[in-house]
Amino acid sequence: MKKIYLDYAATTPVDIQVAKAMQPYFSQKFGNTMSLHSFGQEAKLALEKSRETIADLINAKPNEIIFTSSATESNNTVLKGIALKGGHIIISSIEHPCIMESALWLEKQGVKVTRLKVDKQGIINPKDVEKAIRKDTVLVSIIHASNEIGTIQPIEEIGKLCKKKGVYFHTDASQSFGKIPIDVKNIDLLTASSHKIYGPKGSALLYIRNGIQIRPLLHGGGQEMGFRGSTVNIPAIVGFAKAVELAKKEMVKENKRLAGLQDKLIKGILKIKHSYLNGHPKKRLANNVNVGFSFIEGESLVIQLDLKGIAVSTGSACSSVKLEPSHVLLAIGLRPEQAHGSLRISLGRETTEKDIDYLLKVLPQIVNQLRRISPFA
Amino acid sequence: MKKIYLDYAATTPVDIQVAKAMQPYFSQKFGNTMSLHSFGQEAKLALEKSRETIADLINAKPNEIIFTSSATESNNTVLKGIALKGGHIIISSIEHPCIMESALWLEKQGVKVTRLKVDKQGIINPKDVEKAIRKDTVLVSIIHASNEIGTIQPIEEIGKLCKKKGVYFHTDASQSFGKIPIDVKNIDLLTASSHKIYGPKGSALLYIRNGIQIRPLLHGGGQEMGFRGSTVNIPAIVGFAKAVELAKKEMVKENKRLAGLQDKLIKGILKIKHSYLNGHPKKRLANNVNVGFSFIEGESLVIQLDLKGIAVSTGSACSSVKLEPSHVLLAIGLRPEQAHGSLRISLGRETTEKDIDYLLKVLPQIVNQLRRISPFA
Repeated sequence: MKKIYLDYAATTPVDIQVAKAMQPYFSQKFGNTMSLHSFGQEAKLALEKSRETIADLINAKPNEIIFTSSATESNNTVLKGIALKGGHIIISSIEHPCIMESALWLEKQGVKVTRLKVDKQGIINPKDVEKAIRKDTVLVSIIHASNEIGTIQPIEEIGKLCKKKGVYFHTDASQSFGKIPIDVKNIDLLTASSHKIYGPKGSALLYIRNGIQIRPLLHGGGQEMGFRGSTVNIPAIVGFAKAVELAKKEMVKENKRLAGLQDKLIKGILKIKHSYLNGHPKKRLANNVNVGFSFIEGESLVIQLDLKGIAVSTGSACSSVKLEPSHVLLAIGLRPEQAHGSLRISLGRETTEKDIDYLLKVLPQIVNQLRRISPFA
Repeated sequence: MKKIYLDYAATTPVDIQVAKAMQPYFSQKFGNTMSLHSFGQEAKLALEKSRETIADLINAKPNEIIFTSSATESNNTVLKGIALKGGHIIISSIEHPCIMESALWLEKQGVKVTRLKVDKQGIINPKDVEKAIRKDTVLVSIIHASNEIGTIQPIEEIGKLCKKKGVYFHTDASQSFGKIPIDVKNIDLLTASSHKIYGPKGSALLYIRNGIQIRPLLHGGGQEMGFRGSTVNIPAIVGFAKAVELAKKEMVKENKRLAGLQDKLIKGILKIKHSYLNGHPKKRLANNVNVGFSFIEGESLVIQLDLKGIAVSTGSACSSVKLEPSHVLLAIGLRPEQAHGSLRISLGRETTEKDIDYLLKVLPQIVNQLRRISPFA
């Protein structure tokens, strides 16, 4: 059975061109960037070239990009690197678990945390950000596009008002980077990840506007301009840069194509009785469809669809093994049992119209079948 | 010109068999381990199989191994995860920069740090460890084999006495893991790295004895048994496991072969006037040769050797771009100008007797040439 992967928000396959670009850096050009000899210099050159390619996509300077091992690491670095003792930070109630958990930990260390509410469509009101800023606020961190419901936040506006108030603004752009245009003009710190855009796992970035001081999370040998110790993972970084290069080229066209498939998929699903779209109908990533089905559990749906060769998700991959309902879905006002009945379908480069047709054929059957045996129906 | 790489302690080329093992996990078996569907389960299976292979090498249980992105991350996790507020830790004065810097940072947070001296051959006296343990000591962290001078510490003995005293014992085994046998029987926490043993960069491990609580450095989605959030880097982990499998098979034979080359190299170099071996003549890794040459700078030697096609290092790769003399060489009693005149030559799987012969032909010429123009000679 041909498998249909519709969980691109969790991770993506490495593009063949990316894999090809990485290949020489494993066994031939394998030097350590910190070495003085030619192997080291070769590695260093690849590092700085990658930095330039990637910085360009978001209109940053190359020396404002530091490479990390994951978006989780980037996000932890920002929160813990700026607020460790005291002070006040503002996040949203729909952040990725790594921001939520870091904030919770900081709270235990004495940092004050405000978690902003979102409206029923998952959007933050910039006025709420403005109102929440206090004298001791050191950081505002708002996710750009939700990893669960795909909702896109008004980061431009939030960034501007943070600038006006003199507070650092960070955005976790793991899901949006390389998919929609981003300019860091009004952003102080930004997180992005390679494996969400057909690059390898193990590579991510943190954009740090020039002049911002931030404590390293990984103390070590002074790599990455002193912001992050650790042997630099050149193959992964070269792959990340190649993925960015491809994204740059294909972004507009691919986004349009996905929006078409998304539209068809949403319309098709909403024909199923007692189904509803989670998140904003328009202010959302073109590859994200998050839908709820009353009276059934998302987990059962995932398993049944998997048996039919379709890979989708309940919430984010990071919380899919937990039993608690998604905090994001609760934040947009869903009841726990509704949150449990939700499905995240995320499209990508290899998704075809045929895949969508197949899903739209199979899904209603499974929903009906599960409802027949549901104690809630 | 054929290049001769003699900086295996900085990093190693990925073994062809390792690269081959990783390959399917980039673009085909690319799932996120946290996903419920078959792509996720396939990834999870690869993860747990890798964990078993690696745990077996050091006689640990699979669930005692957590994967990180680097030895630096593992070491930061241990120090900051065990001692964040108050308490006392003991390290040696020849630790890797990531331990030294983490300890320095902890000191600023109120943690007391004892840095144990080593003797002139770079060995720690276990009695000094015993004497340094206080009522509030929470951790002893001693590097197993020095990344600079290759000296091997009596970790078995130190581990036993820590156990007796009820203090956690951690060892950074980045340089020794996969090269000499290690049993974690008397070790509570251990760091090891993939890219030092022909595995990919971006993968490392932290062995945490069952029952030990340690705060995550990366808060996130609950991966790695809650010890480390972040999307799990399956290709790198599969590569690490393959590298361990190969190391297991070749360790004894390869170690013997390298010891022979090392012996020849040391004897050859010590024929050069005013040269000396740094570290212990016997208690050292078979692949490490660290030598000093009076009146010249190690950096000039590295550059001149590079021009002759030979890649070696001054101190560790992590400190090779700094201008300060190596803290390890100072710790064994070298004067700053001596520390600056040292060279680290580290051998590996592709090193042949011919390479050693060539180095022994070229090195005396370069040393003489540099001394002729040296203001110190």
